[in-house]
Amino acid sequence: MSSTAGQVIRCKAAVAWEAAKPLSIEEVEVAPPQANEVRLRILFTSLCHTDVYFWEAKGQTPLFPRIYGHEAGGIVESVGPGVTDLQPGDHVLPVFTGECGDCRHCKSEESNMCDLLRINTDRGVMLTDGKSRFSINGKPIYHFLGGSTFSEYTVCHIGTVAKINPAAPLDKVCILSCGISTGLGAALNVAKPQKGHTVAVFGLGAVGLAAAEGARLSGASRIIGVDLNPSRFKEAKKFGVTELINPKDHDKPVQQVIIEMTDGGVDRSIECTGNVQAMISAFECVHDGWGVAVLVGVPSKDDEFKTHPMNLLNERTLKGTFFGNYKPRTDLPGVVEKYMNKELEVEKFITHSIPFSEINKAFDYMLKGEGLRCIIRMEG
Amino acid sequence: MSSTAGQVIRCKAAVAWEAAKPLSIEEVEVAPPQANEVRLRILFTSLCHTDVYFWEAKGQTPLFPRIYGHEAGGIVESVGPGVTDLQPGDHVLPVFTGECGDCRHCKSEESNMCDLLRINTDRGVMLTDGKSRFSINGKPIYHFLGGSTFSEYTVCHIGTVAKINPAAPLDKVCILSCGISTGLGAALNVAKPQKGHTVAVFGLGAVGLAAAEGARLSGASRIIGVDLNPSRFKEAKKFGVTELINPKDHDKPVQQVIIEMTDGGVDRSIECTGNVQAMISAFECVHDGWGVAVLVGVPSKDDEFKTHPMNLLNERTLKGTFFGNYKPRTDLPGVVEKYMNKELEVEKFITHSIPFSEINKAFDYMLKGEGLRCIIRMEG
Repeated sequence: MSSTAGQVIRCKAAVAWEAAKPLSIEEVEVAPPQANEVRLRILFTSLCHTDVYFWEAKGQTPLFPRIYGHEAGGIVESVGPGVTDLQPGDHVLPVFTGECGDCRHCKSEESNMCDLLRINTDRGVMLTDGKSRFSINGKPIYHFLGGSTFSEYTVCHIGTVAKINPAAPLDKVCILSCGISTGLGAALNVAKPQKGHTVAVFGLGAVGLAAAEGARLSGASRIIGVDLNPSRFKEAKKFGVTELINPKDHDKPVQQVIIEMTDGGVDRSIECTGNVQAMISAFECVHDGWGVAVLVGVPSKDDEFKTHPMNLLNERTLKGTFFGNYKPRTDLPGVVEKYMNKELEVEKFITHSIPFSEINKAFDYMLKGEGLRCIIRMEG
Repeated sequence: MSSTAGQVIRCKAAVAWEAAKPLSIEEVEVAPPQANEVRLRILFTSLCHTDVYFWEAKGQTPLFPRIYGHEAGGIVESVGPGVTDLQPGDHVLPVFTGECGDCRHCKSEESNMCDLLRINTDRGVMLTDGKSRFSINGKPIYHFLGGSTFSEYTVCHIGTVAKINPAAPLDKVCILSCGISTGLGAALNVAKPQKGHTVAVFGLGAVGLAAAEGARLSGASRIIGVDLNPSRFKEAKKFGVTELINPKDHDKPVQQVIIEMTDGGVDRSIECTGNVQAMISAFECVHDGWGVAVLVGVPSKDDEFKTHPMNLLNERTLKGTFFGNYKPRTDLPGVVEKYMNKELEVEKFITHSIPFSEINKAFDYMLKGEGLRCIIRMEG
């Protein structure tokens, strides 16, 4: 056990005091983990679009002060009473959703939507006792997505912590804890393209490019990238994207453009924008008889997916996925191994690296649509 | 070769001279088969809803005079020049859609939507030469769905004729040539329920009950039947339907009723009505994480399938199927074997049997929603 086990740890964290205002690095107290919890020392974290979305709090339940961050890599500092699955020193990725192991979803081979630990964006406290483990001068600071990794130390439920190969470099594999696995799994676990298939990817941000990477790993021979922002096209080529379409360059719907390019439609499509029109296009551009469309992007509250049912009757399949259908604890260690085996290239997603003290720069990059992933070094 | 080979055959056929008027038994001439064609002696045929739909010609392209009928069993009388796949005496089921064996669909393991021979409701002539093989005093009579089985003899493209076990009783297995296989395949090939699953079936006509039969064969433990017509409920119990819901008996949407009955939704649902609201209900009543909804019923031209995309993102799957995903020539012989092995019960679908001379009675039964399948005995 480390000398800090059982003690409150005082450390630096980036606190969001109010919506859309720069984070402020503060000294916070981090209480020891309780039953079913572990306290982690975060070494590297990165910024995901979901952090920005809830920090902006446009239409979301605002919950401040809060410590954001959920895509990260760290080391277990100490474990709560009775915890045996993890021990101090384990290398881990905290995840924004969990796997209790006992519910119908965890017992199903098909689902990763754990009843107990499924993503909950409104909860800012620990499940065990409904309290926060973070405070400043006794005043609680809310958690975010069970992670709150914009802190040197954080406390997580054990069901949301994946133990990984200790040889894996945390400054690289930390980005596998959320967006990259989401896109990769959408391709590998859900769309499952076959060798020689043509795959369309809608949205060429980190998630979409991870989906393209998954399509490439599966042996897809054509990968058609669709984005409204042509600045994304150069980067996309590194990810195996073979053709690019900007819907703005065409008078007809993009699904029709794709159908004409591909003699009837693509074999698989993966939608990573969250825009409902893109979802409809992604569905309608797959080939009849065998085409599969996979939705990844999170839609708005009032969106409606609409299509003529004949599009379905003609043997198309429409599916959605959450975290690429990966079960966090069971499957993430294997994703890390794909990197260790040099199957999966992770480095090309990392376009920036900054010290923790400059964390607000990561928000600027994301808001400007600059680059893909920015690693935030907690020590440095 | 039979003595009639190469000759015009004069025989009885039930001709529809105009929309929605009783068929009239006439003597017709049936020309010999051309290249890629066979002439069949039909022994038993049955009436399917699709015959009635096109005979009523409400909003459909009217094509008269025409010989309807496409669900049937017969024996090859003669084959066209160069035909080697089939020979006189073969027992066969003609099918409303075909399998050329050469196109991308036929070569795909997933599709049965042959480019060349896919169902075409508007074509009333043979593909080979654009002509009809039926005539009365030299005046052509149109074909229907490549079958026109309401005739003692008919000519079909070889790609739409499945050769089956000659020991199979044609008065029973003739109904496997369309509706029953459509529902059965929707369950066995597409929804694929697992042992112990709960399955909802929307629409308890022959296709829906065949889907229930498929769910039963798969080991589903609960089969929930949904229909607006309570007279169907008694029959449904013979098909393994364990619970019945009439949406009219409830104030809330039927998907909500089902979700409450099943602690979150069914594992699989199969929609066999063609009503777009039922399609939406069938999709929204499946469990998140693993639920699969399969659409079978044919929608109207202006229908729109609408749902909130979050219903998909929560890991539900929506698929459509055509002819239960069976490839007509490759797979139908195996469906017949399921009957021969006593796996599949066919008799319970047959509620009426009439001689050919009384064929109009079959239309009356169908229009009144009375019974499931009416066998029409060509010799009788």
